[in-house]
Amino acid sequence: MSVERIESDLIGPLAIPGNVLYGVHTRRAEQNFDVSGLRLKDFPELIQSMAMVKKAAALANMELGLLSREKAQAISDACDELVELKGIEENFPVDMMQGGAGTSTNMNVNEVVTNLALVKLGATVGDYTTLHPNDDVNLSQSTNDIYPTAIRLTVLRACDGLVSAQANLRDAFRAKALQYRNALKVGRTQLQDAVPMTVGQEFEAFAELIDEDIIQIQSASRLLLEINLGGSAIGTSINVPRGFPSIACGHLSRISGIQLVGARNFIEATSDTGGFVSFSGVLKRIAVKLTKICNDLRLLSSGPLGGLGEIRLPPVQAGSSIMPGKVNPVIPEMMNQLSFQVIGNDLTVTLAASAGQLQLNAMEPVIVLNILQSMRMLTRGMEIFKQRCVDGIEVDLERCRDLLDQSLVLATPLAKLIGYSKAAELSKRALAGKRNLRQIVEEEGVLLPDQVEQIFGNSAEFAGFSKAFSA
Amino acid sequence: MSVERIESDLIGPLAIPGNVLYGVHTRRAEQNFDVSGLRLKDFPELIQSMAMVKKAAALANMELGLLSREKAQAISDACDELVELKGIEENFPVDMMQGGAGTSTNMNVNEVVTNLALVKLGATVGDYTTLHPNDDVNLSQSTNDIYPTAIRLTVLRACDGLVSAQANLRDAFRAKALQYRNALKVGRTQLQDAVPMTVGQEFEAFAELIDEDIIQIQSASRLLLEINLGGSAIGTSINVPRGFPSIACGHLSRISGIQLVGARNFIEATSDTGGFVSFSGVLKRIAVKLTKICNDLRLLSSGPLGGLGEIRLPPVQAGSSIMPGKVNPVIPEMMNQLSFQVIGNDLTVTLAASAGQLQLNAMEPVIVLNILQSMRMLTRGMEIFKQRCVDGIEVDLERCRDLLDQSLVLATPLAKLIGYSKAAELSKRALAGKRNLRQIVEEEGVLLPDQVEQIFGNSAEFAGFSKAFSA
Amino acid sequence: MSVERIESDLIGPLAIPGNVLYGVHTRRAEQNFDVSGLRLKDFPELIQSMAMVKKAAALANMELGLLSREKAQAISDACDELVELKGIEENFPVDMMQGGAGTSTNMNVNEVVTNLALVKLGATVGDYTTLHPNDDVNLSQSTNDIYPTAIRLTVLRACDGLVSAQANLRDAFRAKALQYRNALKVGRTQLQDAVPMTVGQEFEAFAELIDEDIIQIQSASRLLLEINLGGSAIGTSINVPRGFPSIACGHLSRISGIQLVGARNFIEATSDTGGFVSFSGVLKRIAVKLTKICNDLRLLSSGPLGGLGEIRLPPVQAGSSIMPGKVNPVIPEMMNQLSFQVIGNDLTVTLAASAGQLQLNAMEPVIVLNILQSMRMLTRGMEIFKQRCVDGIEVDLERCRDLLDQSLVLATPLAKLIGYSKAAELSKRALAGKRNLRQIVEEEGVLLPDQVEQIFGNSAEFAGFSKAFSA
Amino acid sequence: MSVERIESDLIGPLAIPGNVLYGVHTRRAEQNFDVSGLRLKDFPELIQSMAMVKKAAALANMELGLLSREKAQAISDACDELVELKGIEENFPVDMMQGGAGTSTNMNVNEVVTNLALVKLGATVGDYTTLHPNDDVNLSQSTNDIYPTAIRLTVLRACDGLVSAQANLRDAFRAKALQYRNALKVGRTQLQDAVPMTVGQEFEAFAELIDEDIIQIQSASRLLLEINLGGSAIGTSINVPRGFPSIACGHLSRISGIQLVGARNFIEATSDTGGFVSFSGVLKRIAVKLTKICNDLRLLSSGPLGGLGEIRLPPVQAGSSIMPGKVNPVIPEMMNQLSFQVIGNDLTVTLAASAGQLQLNAMEPVIVLNILQSMRMLTRGMEIFKQRCVDGIEVDLERCRDLLDQSLVLATPLAKLIGYSKAAELSKRALAGKRNLRQIVEEEGVLLPDQVEQIFGNSAEFAGFSKAFSA
Repeated sequence: MSVERIESDLIGPLAIPGNVLYGVHTRRAEQNFDVSGLRLKDFPELIQSMAMVKKAAALANMELGLLSREKAQAISDACDELVELKGIEENFPVDMMQGGAGTSTNMNVNEVVTNLALVKLGATVGDYTTLHPNDDVNLSQSTNDIYPTAIRLTVLRACDGLVSAQANLRDAFRAKALQYRNALKVGRTQLQDAVPMTVGQEFEAFAELIDEDIIQIQSASRLLLEINLGGSAIGTSINVPRGFPSIACGHLSRISGIQLVGARNFIEATSDTGGFVSFSGVLKRIAVKLTKICNDLRLLSSGPLGGLGEIRLPPVQAGSSIMPGKVNPVIPEMMNQLSFQVIGNDLTVTLAASAGQLQLNAMEPVIVLNILQSMRMLTRGMEIFKQRCVDGIEVDLERCRDLLDQSLVLATPLAKLIGYSKAAELSKRALAGKRNLRQIVEEEGVLLPDQVEQIFGNSAEFAGFSKAFSA
Repeated sequence: MSVERIESDLIGPLAIPGNVLYGVHTRRAEQNFDVSGLRLKDFPELIQSMAMVKKAAALANMELGLLSREKAQAISDACDELVELKGIEENFPVDMMQGGAGTSTNMNVNEVVTNLALVKLGATVGDYTTLHPNDDVNLSQSTNDIYPTAIRLTVLRACDGLVSAQANLRDAFRAKALQYRNALKVGRTQLQDAVPMTVGQEFEAFAELIDEDIIQIQSASRLLLEINLGGSAIGTSINVPRGFPSIACGHLSRISGIQLVGARNFIEATSDTGGFVSFSGVLKRIAVKLTKICNDLRLLSSGPLGGLGEIRLPPVQAGSSIMPGKVNPVIPEMMNQLSFQVIGNDLTVTLAASAGQLQLNAMEPVIVLNILQSMRMLTRGMEIFKQRCVDGIEVDLERCRDLLDQSLVLATPLAKLIGYSKAAELSKRALAGKRNLRQIVEEEGVLLPDQVEQIFGNSAEFAGFSKAFSA
Repeated sequence: MSVERIESDLIGPLAIPGNVLYGVHTRRAEQNFDVSGLRLKDFPELIQSMAMVKKAAALANMELGLLSREKAQAISDACDELVELKGIEENFPVDMMQGGAGTSTNMNVNEVVTNLALVKLGATVGDYTTLHPNDDVNLSQSTNDIYPTAIRLTVLRACDGLVSAQANLRDAFRAKALQYRNALKVGRTQLQDAVPMTVGQEFEAFAELIDEDIIQIQSASRLLLEINLGGSAIGTSINVPRGFPSIACGHLSRISGIQLVGARNFIEATSDTGGFVSFSGVLKRIAVKLTKICNDLRLLSSGPLGGLGEIRLPPVQAGSSIMPGKVNPVIPEMMNQLSFQVIGNDLTVTLAASAGQLQLNAMEPVIVLNILQSMRMLTRGMEIFKQRCVDGIEVDLERCRDLLDQSLVLATPLAKLIGYSKAAELSKRALAGKRNLRQIVEEEGVLLPDQVEQIFGNSAEFAGFSKAFSA
Repeated sequence: MSVERIESDLIGPLAIPGNVLYGVHTRRAEQNFDVSGLRLKDFPELIQSMAMVKKAAALANMELGLLSREKAQAISDACDELVELKGIEENFPVDMMQGGAGTSTNMNVNEVVTNLALVKLGATVGDYTTLHPNDDVNLSQSTNDIYPTAIRLTVLRACDGLVSAQANLRDAFRAKALQYRNALKVGRTQLQDAVPMTVGQEFEAFAELIDEDIIQIQSASRLLLEINLGGSAIGTSINVPRGFPSIACGHLSRISGIQLVGARNFIEATSDTGGFVSFSGVLKRIAVKLTKICNDLRLLSSGPLGGLGEIRLPPVQAGSSIMPGKVNPVIPEMMNQLSFQVIGNDLTVTLAASAGQLQLNAMEPVIVLNILQSMRMLTRGMEIFKQRCVDGIEVDLERCRDLLDQSLVLATPLAKLIGYSKAAELSKRALAGKRNLRQIVEEEGVLLPDQVEQIFGNSAEFAGFSKAFSA
């Protein structure tokens, strides 16, 4: 283990452990913000995005003649190493929930990149006269353009996994819909028996709910493609050489594989968090839909004997420490809870977004923390939900048919023949007497025999959504 | 119709309709804040509270020799008239959602009180040389102590109705619990059949939920008894004569019948909205409980044939424009929706409470607006819920018993005799074969005959909460 | 005054006042849901949309041979009358916060349309054998497709006013930006002096914030164009004749002037409220931006002497009942409060949207109530904000310049020449000694004279965002 | 490294790593719920509370003759070991955000306690015939009483640290208030100069805000003292021996040092989460207050030259990667962000609390996760805030005095002598002409010379809150 070194900042000198690649600014921040238990090292995707931005800036600075080829190359190589992230994570100890609008994250990366590059240059760690975290690695940059750019990039890069989880979940419901496309059952509104439908229709609606959210997340992610890289402290591009923004943006697009664009108004873009509000809003929307779907699955699988009992979720663990044989809908319950968390996180994002002041929103760290947490939970959650629940759902066809047969849901087509008021009266009598609607109708003689058959023999037709619209 | 008069303020002269009792400050505010559609006249309880405060202040000023007996008496009489509010409401047009921290509400009341008093004094409306809205009616006061005092008083006065509605609803559930105290049914956890219980126990739990909230609302209301009357603009009591705060507080307690006390720290009390945060938090808690109760009632009444169907809610209207005979749980649905509104309103209160700055929170108008709206909806809603839903609930005893008999809920006491693992195995077999647990147990011979009876003949005992704790 | 008539429903007979156009279903609902104080008559835009839907359905039914030309014409004429709404509003007394998923709103409209049409047909009000609210006016329809269609249409129709208010507010800020495009000032991050900018840039950023929201609201509104008209009770189009959905949708598009389309999956569309979640999310986003803008204006106008004091908001009323001459930022304060309300309302929408169950979301009434309320407040609020605040903003140019000159904001370009660490040291000394940064730099001799001029004579250049990106 | 063992549950056999103390139920749960990244081992305080409950139950079972002294002693010793937690944490891998209402947490503890006890009994890990996780360690218990009891206990035990952090922060503000008790300054309402006050009064108000929250947290924590231990699955105490609840509760009180009591209604208590709603509501209240305080500190320290500049926060790190010498209010910014998180977490708690169904609320895991996270952040945050910010605040006395002298805040006492309207007029003229109010007053001759002195020589008196109330 190597010996401590001393670094200094505006506050004064500070001892830095000899074996670390960060410096004084990181060390201060580590001490100042030890509050959430969630550190930059726990979010390697953000470290990677920061490294991509640093590399793009170094290349642009080199092209513009501000940075020597040697320095630029060393910085670029250091950034590549960070993107691979092998075993370097421990050098990123700053808390994700930090004051200072991301300055500590930026300086943590600046310092580690500098020291990695110094080693490549044959210099020693901490020799900032050879390469300087601010004057070289942060050259032409400000936290206020670097950090907003990097967090947008991080969210964009995480979208693929989220969309993939959504698509897989949708497809799982689609497969179930296909499997049970002809299974007749009672459709319910307001938890009351309504009209006939098929199990396939019910599952297909779940698939459609999810499919629409895929479109929404993709649409919202496009808002994040606009970056303020090159805007410097407040968007006026102070200290930024002419041409830097477009060159750096081009490099960053190439490095990340994501087609970023410069914002229309850099000053507005520097303080604005509207893109995050919208994106988090879609995460909330996904959570709202998952809440609905999971509530439905728990309802449809209620019982097994004293509930609806139409479907069976696959058992994945014993349900109770005391009630033998009980199997609970634990996966949907997990999804419900993480959905609540995502909705709560969205409120945190909203509050933070409202707290921008003048030329900056200093609350961006808590915004990105919550969005990344929500994305992780949704992505991982939907994968588990698909594999451990949806894929294994079984329908109790007999139960579905029994409930349909004893119900009054054919009163609606009946009304078409005998009028709403008369149909209502017969339904009421059937229910009160716990009798069958068909019997009552036949006794009353309100229909001709073939009309009786037309109504009561035709659940399937009434359930079938017969492309009425396209006709 | 009388002729317009001209009044002036810092902005300039302004025409005031001849037939109104308010003046220039009200007229300005009416024009400035026409945004929510909810006006001071729609909240007579706030007008009344303001009048009580004005009267208390006038009496205190008189006692301290600052206001002549004649003026004080006229103001006091005018305030009494406002408390009765007969036909004067139209003179309070300012929007409840107003900027200015309540200044417009205060000035609206100052102006109407002045003009009512001027008439009593034999002067003409608008003759502010005889009696002045600021120098006389607002004497020793500031909006910043008057308004916070009056809105606290308003909430306190509205508590009685709320608590009464809570108590009636609780009692309605208690009555149902008593009526069905012996009706056995399946108890459910996670929507899965669990162990036996009685309908009475289920209803009694609803009653208990509500009863606990009564205690909470009463407790939170006590936080609002602390007022800053006499603190003036920022709590330093500038322009306020020595002794005024205690004398005025005494009068106000007597006039309102509510025992108010002066805050420990007037400066803190002037900007603090913590009492409202806590109070609104309890309204939210009530909404959370009502959500749970109404969800349960809708679930228990689901069907009537394809759901749990254990209870029947009284039909209060036809349920569908197309499905004859359908009756929906419309009253619980209304309660669910107003509960969502109360929870949303609580967020608005939270946001407004967070926005206090330095010596004042200028966002109090939206705070009191939301609290009063929530109180009204909860009070009126619980009354309707009791009368049109809970009072008329009927239990389908046969259905409850059937679901219990076919369930596996006696596996839990069974496990006590044969162990958790064995009981789980037998339950699983019963369910898979759609067979009766008792039969399986008997076939297996795992119990002696009297043990079989001990388990399967004893739902009532297992359901009975046999005072285990007191033993 | 005419004599009462008796109408009957599934519950029994009920007396209806003789002079009203509604019937038994409306009367029941009026009694059941008297809870929010907000009635259908207070939202004529919803009545109008319902009437448009009813007309479209009647025309489609006629074309399909289900409704006689005479009946269809009478219904159509009645609907036209409703769209004009002259003095008929009082016939819509049902509470907006109603259980039953909108059935009461639908039946209120069905009954009024029927009775209006009956008069046109020469029959008497209440003569439902001639024309029936359910069997004729509601023909081929269900609340569950009519109501979701009508509330979407209502929101869409209200968008124009909202967008217009946004555009006007944006233009007002643009005009200010142009007026003060050359006024130099201190740019601030984290409330600390940062680097130079112009007042024009600051106002232009506000304009841009609003402009981006216009795009968002238009984008979100497109999600609402998808309707489920013709889906009937649960989206299976039960009782709906083949072809009805497309014909009715076509009529409705023509009648409303809005190009609606049938949803891809009617079953999903019937219970889904995702479009409302997204739309309300944009309303929340607008509120977040307005919060930021109004906070900034209040901050920039703080003082007038003990604050930033860079701008003066136009005085619109006296600020205090006790502090003479005080003028407060009452219009931004109003906007802050209504923004809090909109954010709270969005939570209510989120909660209601999460509460859909199986084939329906019965909580749609509270969703549309909150969205319409938020749209009204935002529309009216932005109009007032523009007229009574933004248009009249004046900048104190002298104050802006003084603050800039005494600040240390030129340390940033200085660092480009002498390095970050040295510039930091000099800034610290300047601040500690309350001295001028230029003087310190000159004393230190760290720059050549023309370099001094390059830095300290060039605020304007450093503030100018010199199209760095496009270079 | 030891060899795998095979354990079985209702799903089937499963390989368990040889070196771990948990069993099949834990392993299933680990696979089912890997979603939040937060595991039981990260919350040792919850493991400890669970162990205390298990010990109390074992002792009660022994006293009631249900468990041999030998087994009870082994279980008790194992629980003691868990409370010390030395190096055993890794055996608690289940995700905190779990479905199943806490069953997995309960079974994880049951299994580890069993295996620890088996070792003490000289048996081998996994030998459940000697001691069984369900039949012995979980004897007389259900997750549904154990888990709610343990999470309440955990929150209660964490309260001490929270209250201590609050008290220290309050005292730090009190010390500042004392230090600056005589420093005069401008008091501000609505960010506008209002009337004189002292810095001491301003800081004392912060102290008071915090002090009131201490009372609230203590009050809310008392609601959590009510436990349902002994209620079993749904509160009916099925399988629980008579006397167990009171005996176990007594042991638990003694073991934990916290005086717990049995709930009045065990059935209600089993599903009710009202205590958590209230407690989380107080955490939100604390966050609201901290938001206000931190906003104020950031505002008062704004500048240093282009803002209010009345106070200086201690610099704890360099403020910017590009702006040399800039020092930002990073600690208050951190506090603002964690406050947003706490408010968001409270919404998550609210949503989860609303989702209880019938006899259980299966969403308790996300409730306790959020409450514990919020408590940690608040506790740690307030400690940092005190040490790294409040303790080091310095007031710029000269700046305070300058702002006071140039302000118009003495117009309010002036109005007492010359009337509100006249004072307003003079103030307006002073501001327009950028002149001194005293000069204007003297020129106008509206006051006698000693009156001028009475007003303008007396800021200190006007600021002093002269015990008006007690007089």
